[in-house]
This record gives sequence, C-alpha cells and structure tokens, in this order.
Amino acid sequence: MSYSMVELIRTKRDGGALEPDALRWIIEEYTADRIPDYQLSSLLMAIVFNGMSQDELGPWTEAMLHSGEVLDLSDVDKPKIDKHSTGGVGDKISIPLAPIVAACGVAVPMMSGRGLGHTGGTLDKLESISGFNTMIEPSAFNDQLEDIGVVMVGQTETLVPADRRIYALRDATGTVPSVPLISSSIMSKKLAEDLDGLLLDVKVGSGAFMKTAADATFLAETMVGIGASHDTPVTAILTDMSQPLGRAVGNANEIAESVDILRGEGPEDVRRLTVRFASEMIMLSGADDLEDATSRATSAIESGSAYEIMIKLTERQGGDPAVIENTDLLPHASHEHVILARRSGVVSQCNAYDIGAAGVRLGGGRATKGDIIDPSVGFLIEKKVGETVDEGDLLARIAYNDEERLQSALHALEHAWEISDESRSDDELILGEIR
Amino acid sequence: MSYSMVELIRTKRDGGALEPDALRWIIEEYTADRIPDYQLSSLLMAIVFNGMSQDELGPWTEAMLHSGEVLDLSDVDKPKIDKHSTGGVGDKISIPLAPIVAACGVAVPMMSGRGLGHTGGTLDKLESISGFNTMIEPSAFNDQLEDIGVVMVGQTETLVPADRRIYALRDATGTVPSVPLISSSIMSKKLAEDLDGLLLDVKVGSGAFMKTAADATFLAETMVGIGASHDTPVTAILTDMSQPLGRAVGNANEIAESVDILRGEGPEDVRRLTVRFASEMIMLSGADDLEDATSRATSAIESGSAYEIMIKLTERQGGDPAVIENTDLLPHASHEHVILARRSGVVSQCNAYDIGAAGVRLGGGRATKGDIIDPSVGFLIEKKVGETVDEGDLLARIAYNDEERLQSALHALEHAWEISDESRSDDELILGEIR
Repeated sequence: MSYSMVELIRTKRDGGALEPDALRWIIEEYTADRIPDYQLSSLLMAIVFNGMSQDELGPWTEAMLHSGEVLDLSDVDKPKIDKHSTGGVGDKISIPLAPIVAACGVAVPMMSGRGLGHTGGTLDKLESISGFNTMIEPSAFNDQLEDIGVVMVGQTETLVPADRRIYALRDATGTVPSVPLISSSIMSKKLAEDLDGLLLDVKVGSGAFMKTAADATFLAETMVGIGASHDTPVTAILTDMSQPLGRAVGNANEIAESVDILRGEGPEDVRRLTVRFASEMIMLSGADDLEDATSRATSAIESGSAYEIMIKLTERQGGDPAVIENTDLLPHASHEHVILARRSGVVSQCNAYDIGAAGVRLGGGRATKGDIIDPSVGFLIEKKVGETVDEGDLLARIAYNDEERLQSALHALEHAWEISDESRSDDELILGEIR
Repeated sequence: MSYSMVELIRTKRDGGALEPDALRWIIEEYTADRIPDYQLSSLLMAIVFNGMSQDELGPWTEAMLHSGEVLDLSDVDKPKIDKHSTGGVGDKISIPLAPIVAACGVAVPMMSGRGLGHTGGTLDKLESISGFNTMIEPSAFNDQLEDIGVVMVGQTETLVPADRRIYALRDATGTVPSVPLISSSIMSKKLAEDLDGLLLDVKVGSGAFMKTAADATFLAETMVGIGASHDTPVTAILTDMSQPLGRAVGNANEIAESVDILRGEGPEDVRRLTVRFASEMIMLSGADDLEDATSRATSAIESGSAYEIMIKLTERQGGDPAVIENTDLLPHASHEHVILARRSGVVSQCNAYDIGAAGVRLGGGRATKGDIIDPSVGFLIEKKVGETVDEGDLLARIAYNDEERLQSALHALEHAWEISDESRSDDELILGEIR
C-alpha cells in the first residue's frame, strides 16, 4: 500500500483520522528515509493541534515499536513488569522499587532515561555508584533478569529507532507538547520491552510536565489505551509533583535516600509511594489481592531481601557494593549552604520546579543533552508543605562545589518556599488511578 | 539580532505574535539556507492553525519581497498600476484590461502566472498567439513600458526567491490553504514590481480558491492591509466565480474573446468587469472621478486605441499581430462535441469548477507543473445561469483533439449544468469592494 504524504498531512490538518495502514506506512517510510523531515514535521505540528484518536494511536505506536529490534524475554520464566515515571524532582522511586518487586518474584527489565531539563534521571543517579554500568550487553540482559530478577539500564540504540528520530525532530520543531506524541513515544519504548504489564507514574504539578490533573488524566488515559490496543495491562497512578519527593534532590544523595528506603528508613512519602507502586506491579504480575501484594512488598523491605537484591544488582552491573553498604562513600560536595525561614508560619509552598531548576544550575542536571553532571551536588530538604516553622529554622541544605553556580541556584530558589499564617490540609500524594 | 527558531515556532504554536525583527530573521535565514526546511514547515503549519496578524504580515511580506531583486521603474514617467486575480475559469480579463488601461496613460507592468489546477493562466493564453514571448529581457522591460505603457510577462527568477522556495515547501507540506500565507505570497510578488497601486480581483465561488464571500473578504482585507503597511494603495473587488466568465474557456479561444472585447464586442459580463477594473486602475493612478475614469476606459475601447496597443504589445513581444487582426488564425482543435439541454427550464447552475476541471482533462490546463498544454481545446458556453432553455438546446460546444480526453472531460461535466423549473434572480457579478 502506498500513500501520498501531502494528502495524509492535509487529512490530519483538516481534522480527519488517518487509517491504520497509512499510519504504519508513515513510520516505515520515515524510518527508511523515504519521507523527508519537512513533511513529517508538518504532520507532527498538525497532530499538536488536532490530536490523534485511540484508533490512530494503536497502529502508530505499534509501527514505532516494530521499527527496530524488540526484546524477547520469553526465556525468562517470570512475569515481566516495568514502571515508568513521566518525570519529576526528587523522584528516585524506581531505584528502591525495582529490587523490592524483584524480591517478590517479578522480573523487572527496567530501561530508564537520563535527566533533561529540571527533572532528574534514574541512569544519572545510578552512575553516582562507583563503577555502576547502565549499558550492559544485550546477551547478558536475559541472564541477569533470570538470575536476580532485575536489570536497570539505558535504552539500547537498536530499540525503537523511529522514536529516537521522531523525538529529535520534535525537539527541533516545537512539537514536543502533544499528549498523543508523548504517549506513543513512551509506550513504544516500554512495549518494546516484551512486558506482561506496565505501571505508569503520571506526575502532576509545578515540577511535572503536566501541570494540571486534567492534562495528566488525559495523558494517563491515552497511555492506558495504547497498552490495551497492544493487549498489555497498564495501570497509571497520578501523583503529586508540586513539591519534591522525599528529602533528597540530586544524584548521589538520592541513591542514599533510596538505600534508606530499602533499609526500612527514609522519608514517609517516598516509602509510601514505593510500597504502593510495588504492590501495583505485583498485582499486574497476576496477583489478585492488593492487601496481600502490599504485605509482600513490605516484607521484602523488612526481611532485607530487597536490600540484598540491590547489592546483587550493583555487583552484577559493575558497581561497588560497598557504596550501598555505606552510602557515605558516595561522592560528596565540598561546601554546604543553608536556607533559613525568613518568617514564622506554615510552609505553603516548596516548589518542585524551582528546586529542580536550581539543581540543574548547581550542576546536578543537564540544560542541554551534552552536559556532564556533577553527582555530588543537591539538596536535603528539611521543611515541606504543611510543616510549621519558626523564623530562622533550617528549610534546606545545599551541597555545592562552585560559588557561582550556588549564586545562580539561589536565584532560582528565590520564591521556592512560601510560608503563610494559616495551616492548610496536606495535599494528597496520590491523586488518582487509571487502569 | 539572532533568534532560536524552535522558540519562534513555539510562540506561534501557542498563539503568540512574532515580532517584526524575528519575522525578517526567519525569511533571511531560510533564504540563506540557515534554517532547515523541517523547521520552516513546522512553523508554516502552526501559521495554518493560528494565523498571522496584520502587524506580523507587514514585515514578513516586506522581508519576502526584499529576498531578491526588486523592479526599479522610477525612470518610467507614468503611474504604475497592476492587477492580480486570485484565479478562476474563463478569467481572461487581464488581457483586454492591460491595453485599455495603458491607452489611458497608465503604465501596466503586468507579471502573470500560468494555469495550475482547474484555473487558467494569462501566460498560457498569451502563448497561443504565435511567437508571443512572455519572458522578455529585464533590460527591455522599462523601455517597452515607457514606449507602449504595457508589459505582460512571467515573473523573473530573480524576483522574490523566498516566495518560490516557501511556495514549493507549502505545496509539499499541506500548508497552502492559509489566508496569511496566500496573501503574503501574492503581495510580495506584486509589491516587488515597484507599483503605485494594485487592483485585486478576489474571486468567490465554486471555481475560485475561496468558496465563500466571508473567506474572500478576509483574504481581500488581509491583502489590502499588507498594501497599506507598504504604503501602496490597493483596491480589492470581490467577483463571482460560481460560473465561468464570458463564453470562452480555454487558451486560444480566450484570446479571441479578449480581442472581441477590445473591438467593443464580446460577452456582456466580461466587458462590464473589464471596464470596471480599468476605471478602478485609473482611479488608483491618481484620478479622482470614477465616472470620468469609466468614460476614459470606454473611450479607449471605442476609439480603437486599446486595440492598437494590443497589436503593438503583440509585436513588441515577438507575437504575430496578424493573429490579433484575424483570430481565426489562432490554433483550432480538430473536433467539436456539443452539450445539449436534457430538459426545458431555466439554467440554475453552470459550475465553474466542473468546467475548469474538464478543461484540464481536455489538455487545456495542467494537472501537474510539468504538463504541456494544448492551446486549441476548450469550451464555448452558450447558456449560463438565469437563461431559459428548451430540451435539446445547445448548452456548450467543446473543441477537442482526443476522444479519450473528451470522454474524461464529459465525465467531469456530468453535473456542471443544472436546469430547474423556476427562474431566479441573476447572481451578482460584483459582490463587494475593499479599499
């Protein structure tokens, strides 16, 4: 079947729907360099305006995921469940989560990303563990998954090349913010992992890409719909990202906080979300009792079995397990600056975006793709929304290495904390779920 | 001043306005190959959706018109006025119009186009006059304009290269139907002619690109606004294109009808529109009395002075003046087919689009840019809207050379004529004016 690309662009421009064969044809021809960038970018902009229906997104995503190799995990004799977060600040949940779920007998073939913009990335955090290698050989992938139940790596170049090319084009043509394009990008990569189920953490708030619950709900529904058209069960949990998750924001310090969680310690919000996500992944693996799944996840922490898997994971991927045993061995910044409350009252804002952006300025994230990050810098947040403070109380510690970068970060933090007179009810951490 | 193209695309995508310097920068950088096609096409699609304000169109069009050479007609000691039609079927008005206006002491530096799609083109029609050359040397342009007051040529390659490139990109990316992009394309080319005034014939109806009066009005207002921002007076007349203009639709036969007009003969609608347009162009040249301008235009026909200029124009551009003196010398097709009324009644439709499309199928127009046209084929329409017919009456004669092409044309004409019981009031030929 052959099509006229300009006709297809016109159809989408005029609000029509593209048929499945046409959508497959576009992905195949573009990947084979037979559709020029200037035609695809024009179509992408028409999609930004006119969207794509679920009927269009199924074949479009399917064609993307088959544009390159797909994983074959059929020789791994466990249910394969992954988790994806749409990205936030202080969002280290994947790191304690994967070993917990693995400890409960579920295989977690986790392919993660790097930080870009104000959000952090799991790969960057893991690489603050001395020697940790996030690019293991494909041949070692299945063996490790079979042996210890978890792999935490970057996406290989051979997986979903269409997404890599389309994303680069979207980045250069102002066509990034589109729910169908975001959804198909995420889902094509995840579904290429040969999963039996996928948990999505869709973040909402200042520190997330989706600023409102309505936008996040639409994104979640769209991704769950794509999963359904691929016959893969997907659960999406909407969670708050108006303030950072936990106390630690950075790379090395988020590893330390993750290890705390595996030791049954760490901040309550991170622990709560980790256990909830673990139980949801256990449910996706075939369990039928959420209470039981939750107690299995909790036991994996309390028994130390999840912690043991984190040690094995680190060893297996070339990292130094001593760093997990003693997180003081993680990189440390040379200086500390403290932020103090300017007045007494109740914290009414601890802005995730501002803190994320300040982290990039410290050197802990990337403004552009080529930037090299400093794993040692970051924040330890002492006061979050709803907490009472007196003037002069410690709000946060900033670990930094460069005075100029500190000043730039402090500028970004100018309005990060707000303190008001009245106490208000805590914001909900979990805002909704879509299955 | 330098900009980030992706930032500018985002601004337009999100409904913002681009500043004048940014608009100039886009045209300059694109023309210099420093903005890739895929970024411009994405911006163009965002413009299709979000439009451009008059404040944006002024500098955008100005930058386009200065992307190459512009004419310098300062040594021609007469007011320079041109006319542009948005295109229709049987629209040969430019051909008698230019000599009439020239006969009234106005210089007409007319640069026209070729037919594409269902509409005809002035250049194609002129080339059915044996030897007529529509590509004269730039050095001869001003001399001819000074000597006889009229030049009828194609646009030179050096004029407005930005438009040529952007138009080719729009054609391939589904970004043609956009009032601001159409307006800036037309106006950049016309304003590069160093005019003192411009008359626009904005066609409305089945045979026009604008199907409704509202769309045509918006297009007319936009173009008049661009003229104002360039300090060039522009008058736009909205005219009906629901049925063809005049009797002749084709190339050679439209030349014959044009010569008829110059002899004081020819169909009433063509004569009326030609005189009206001539008087509007005389007004644009500085006259202040429309009645006087109209009588000057009429006199130019009646005295034979306009006809004489047509002879001189033909001679000067290499054509055979004997063809003007005896239009039987124009190319003739070898066969004739007649279309007869299937019933008695009143003609309620004589569809311009259908007849234009049938003309292309006969070989008289171009389906794609490279097609070679047959000047001899076409239609002579005997019955138009509002005329009473008896069953079996002649509706139109079709001049053709190829039986297969005739059959294809007849297929397109299937529903071109409609005959109903009731007489209805004639549609207006002139629907409005915008200055």
